[in-house]
Amino acid sequence: MENMNIAIAGYGNLGRGVEEAVKKNPDMKLFAVFTRRSPEALMLKTPGVPVYHLDDAVKYKKDIDVMIICGGSATDLPGLTPMLAKDFNVVDSFDTHANIPAHFSKVDEAARAGGHTAIISVGWDPGLFSVSRLYMSSVLPDGHDYTFWGRGVSQGHSDAIRRIEGVLDARQYTVPVKAAIDAVRAGKNPELTVREKHRRECYVVAAEGADRAAIEKKIKTMPNYFADYDTTVTFITMEEMKKNHSALPHGGSVIRCGETSDGIKETIEFSLKLDSNPEFTGSVLCAIARAALRLSKEGGYGCKTIFDIPPAYLSAYSAEELRAHML
Amino acid sequence: MENMNIAIAGYGNLGRGVEEAVKKNPDMKLFAVFTRRSPEALMLKTPGVPVYHLDDAVKYKKDIDVMIICGGSATDLPGLTPMLAKDFNVVDSFDTHANIPAHFSKVDEAARAGGHTAIISVGWDPGLFSVSRLYMSSVLPDGHDYTFWGRGVSQGHSDAIRRIEGVLDARQYTVPVKAAIDAVRAGKNPELTVREKHRRECYVVAAEGADRAAIEKKIKTMPNYFADYDTTVTFITMEEMKKNHSALPHGGSVIRCGETSDGIKETIEFSLKLDSNPEFTGSVLCAIARAALRLSKEGGYGCKTIFDIPPAYLSAYSAEELRAHML
Repeated sequence: MENMNIAIAGYGNLGRGVEEAVKKNPDMKLFAVFTRRSPEALMLKTPGVPVYHLDDAVKYKKDIDVMIICGGSATDLPGLTPMLAKDFNVVDSFDTHANIPAHFSKVDEAARAGGHTAIISVGWDPGLFSVSRLYMSSVLPDGHDYTFWGRGVSQGHSDAIRRIEGVLDARQYTVPVKAAIDAVRAGKNPELTVREKHRRECYVVAAEGADRAAIEKKIKTMPNYFADYDTTVTFITMEEMKKNHSALPHGGSVIRCGETSDGIKETIEFSLKLDSNPEFTGSVLCAIARAALRLSKEGGYGCKTIFDIPPAYLSAYSAEELRAHML
Repeated sequence: MENMNIAIAGYGNLGRGVEEAVKKNPDMKLFAVFTRRSPEALMLKTPGVPVYHLDDAVKYKKDIDVMIICGGSATDLPGLTPMLAKDFNVVDSFDTHANIPAHFSKVDEAARAGGHTAIISVGWDPGLFSVSRLYMSSVLPDGHDYTFWGRGVSQGHSDAIRRIEGVLDARQYTVPVKAAIDAVRAGKNPELTVREKHRRECYVVAAEGADRAAIEKKIKTMPNYFADYDTTVTFITMEEMKKNHSALPHGGSVIRCGETSDGIKETIEFSLKLDSNPEFTGSVLCAIARAALRLSKEGGYGCKTIFDIPPAYLSAYSAEELRAHML
């Protein structure tokens, strides 16, 4: 096992998830947390770990094996990952699927210029779900795969509700439709509309005197987010929100059914049930950070995704140990 | 997509499974089947494909991109894989877990000497289940994983019953115990004995006048195979055997539950439900053959396992296509 210094850039839910994950990996040490806020204002869970301003990161270039970048895909990562990839091995969880090719190419250029390894779009989707889709489609070329998300909290959908006038707080759960999953598992390869795959459950705290009917209508008709789904809206109190909806559970399944010869069906399923989406995502980022360090040591510079990484590079065990005990 | 010539060494159930799988991969062509039997005696399902004696394989060295070796792990593969790895890129499904390190080292030596790539122990267990255990344990280091097999036919256990005097034919199904799976899925990380994890269902055709009670006792008390399990024995007719037990279904699950922080549980599951064990295993072997050819082209000689292979190498799609559509 290597001993490696991890740094975290960005200390929100995901940054705290990485902080927890580092503790579970005996070969990793949290060297520092970097923030664009005022460093003094940040209270880490881990005692003794320094907090620095992100502008000072480059001063610690030699001390940090891998920088795990914990920012949002909309505004943080597109600038941050290429910037940091010049000076560090980096890992991020960029998850705007449509923009992955553009992000990849910017990060690749920066990482090559700096002689570093960058692994982008790591987590569970994109991440473990993606690599499952890849294995499944490679071994069952004549088939279809389906991805179901949930039951779990969607941060983006919750935020969209919070922006509606009169809404104090909101939590949106994405829920896969059981009949759809059952049909897929039964190997029926159904054609499914967006509405048939998932429904959306919304819990909303409205301001006193707000027009609840108007809020409900605004949610249910919101294009892209809710209009194409069966959506339920339940108004609750702030106390109920805090008591029953403060966790960030998630999960889901990738299922592929295909034929290997006429009428001979094979079904593969990969699924997750997560108490904490950010902690689990942080755990995946840490395992991939180990792979980033190994790749950089052998000169594998540039931008990579989980598709390019030999699975053994994620593990703390040696190749011999893995062959003897895990194969 | 490359265009690659696949050859099959050994034409039993698994060889026929590979033959079917090649048809599902547009970039692959079945060049020939090699056998140690008399080539004229072999009737392939695919018209126009030649059958040669294995002793003549080396004559076709330049025509074959990857040789997929379809033999048994007890007596065929230990000799065959190192022998063929001198002259060909090879893939095998060696599955005697305890002997993998020794097999690896013999194959590695032969493949390096010949300048070829060999990938051993490919299929679903070892194979896809192994790589699932690797990803799971890497991302959830503080946890336990469990492998359940079945419901499916175990060839080895069926053979063991067939060797009992008075038995004309037999089929043994390995069946995971539902209560055990439920406890694991619920995140209880139970300690499970062999008996608590799987039970064994045996269907036996006895010779006329055979002592059925004695056969049943011999099965149920057979060490290693049955004595440690709850085993049921059902006597059936040869007609029933042919009608109801001629398929080779299998499947199973790898489940890992771990904590990312105190009391926060995450569960990962990978599962298979297979109509045909040999066809599915053949499909995995073909995807890995694609990876073997790519590795050999870039000089990645020697013996590898699925742990060492970047997942993208299994796919017919390019890295750009994968990033754009599968990540």
